[in-house]
Amino acid sequence: MQQLKARDGGAGARVAAFTLLAHVLAAAAAALVLFWCIHFRGGLALRSHDKQLIFNAHPVLMLLGLVVVAAEAILCYRSLPWATPQLVSRDARKKAHLALHAVGLALGGLGIYAVFKFHVEAGIPNLYSLHSWIGITTISLYALHWLTAFLTFFFPGAAPATRRSAVPWHALLGLLIFALAVGNAQLGFLEKLTFLQGPPVRLAKYGAEALLVNFTALVVLLLGVAVVLATANVDSTRYTAM
Amino acid sequence: MQQLKARDGGAGARVAAFTLLAHVLAAAAAALVLFWCIHFRGGLALRSHDKQLIFNAHPVLMLLGLVVVAAEAILCYRSLPWATPQLVSRDARKKAHLALHAVGLALGGLGIYAVFKFHVEAGIPNLYSLHSWIGITTISLYALHWLTAFLTFFFPGAAPATRRSAVPWHALLGLLIFALAVGNAQLGFLEKLTFLQGPPVRLAKYGAEALLVNFTALVVLLLGVAVVLATANVDSTRYTAM
Ligand code: HEM
Ligand code: HEM
Repeated sequence: MQQLKARDGGAGARVAAFTLLAHVLAAAAAALVLFWCIHFRGGLALRSHDKQLIFNAHPVLMLLGLVVVAAEAILCYRSLPWATPQLVSRDARKKAHLALHAVGLALGGLGIYAVFKFHVEAGIPNLYSLHSWIGITTISLYALHWLTAFLTFFFPGAAPATRRSAVPWHALLGLLIFALAVGNAQLGFLEKLTFLQGPPVRLAKYGAEALLVNFTALVVLLLGVAVVLATANVDSTRYTAM
Repeated sequence: MQQLKARDGGAGARVAAFTLLAHVLAAAAAALVLFWCIHFRGGLALRSHDKQLIFNAHPVLMLLGLVVVAAEAILCYRSLPWATPQLVSRDARKKAHLALHAVGLALGGLGIYAVFKFHVEAGIPNLYSLHSWIGITTISLYALHWLTAFLTFFFPGAAPATRRSAVPWHALLGLLIFALAVGNAQLGFLEKLTFLQGPPVRLAKYGAEALLVNFTALVVLLLGVAVVLATANVDSTRYTAM
């Protein structure tokens, strides 16, 4: 759908470095959240008498879908930055971009299903928290954004002039929705850990699990920053009169 | 320090609309957090036998400093978008920009002091939460960013070529730090409300105060989005081959 013009000289190295960093952080985030839910929280399930296991599917699926897979989808046009257009065509990248976002959306949808199922089966009210309000907004915007982009850039596709002026908005709004997902994951980790530090579990404030959860959240946050710095337009020709 | 080149035709109206929206949301956020702390939480103080009043100074000062005043500082170059350079010079805007950020930093510093004082006097451990880790990072980056920009763009000031290439990085990293402050305020509101919904207070999940706190947080989030959309570079000449 888009390819960067090589307008700013040193941008290639910056993009490559932050893209690589983002891949590493994405893998680390996925490993850490799985390790937390399996090793410390007893595993995950979509059906179980132990309702906590149903909850545990939520952070894993949300993080994999709306953050890890979404980050890889966003970076499609930058991944393998050394690969020439002859090796990986723009069209292949575009298809990978929209397919990966579809996978991210599906995983995210399943993760929302899991947490509602948990709430209903455990008798906890729905949609009372800031995290849940921002969460519902985020996944709705994610779905709407995907659909709009599909219609504009893939099928049936808008007129070339429309596409041209829509692309920077698509990229900016997409990054904003991604930032919402990253930020809402922070809220989720904080909320869950705060629950666990209260009665009846009373997890230690500086214990191994607390440090692991905070550390996982920080890796997710750094992943978000790396994705922004790998895609941002840093263009000094935009400014005058410094 | 910078002024936008009128490269994209319709950008002026977009910038003006989101700047105006941001001013309104900033005023609303300030009013809401004050109303919450005074009406529902009993007021604020830096010295008191009621340690909760010392805590209450924290959200008010952080929000006023790192979010409301910081937003106004960021928007200095866009505020009053109808004012011609003859009316408000670039130099006056630059001085307002750095002075407002200094005020924001001072208020933020006082807010951090208040919450540490609360923790120490109430016997609560320091720096155990994700909110506190991101918070310390945010205010440190804010101070560092201010100092670096002062040296580069004000006094003694770097060479013109350095300034020119530093400006887009200054703007991008500044927006990232602002986004961290907005996101960390979300974490603070969620954490405080989660405490209040547990023992001993057991605030109702859908009660007036819970809705007010969540609503305040959403106004802050929308303020963050408005500031990004008022300052973002939406430039379709950057993309080829859609
Ligand atoms: C980033 C993507 C995420 C989204 C869009 C999201 C969305 C949601 C939604 C909509 C709910 C409300 C369910 C209901 O009311 O029945 C919820 C609940 C919850 N989520 Fe997430 N979530 C995300 C990530 C996470 C993560 C990473 C955690 C970490 C543990 C988490 C922890 C929780 C907790 C503890 C609840 C139950 C309490 C509450 O309703 O706030 N979430 N989430
Ligand atoms: C956006 C700017 C903010 C920053 C940089 C920030 C920073 C911090 C820091 C560094 C601490 C740790 C103090 C200690 O450990 O002794 C803290 C604690 C706290 N803050 Fe904030 N804060 C911000 C906004 C808010 C807001 C808007 C609220 C809303 C109520 C809030 C609620 C809390 C609570 C409940 C604590 C105590 C629990 C904890 O240590 O996490 N904060 N904050």
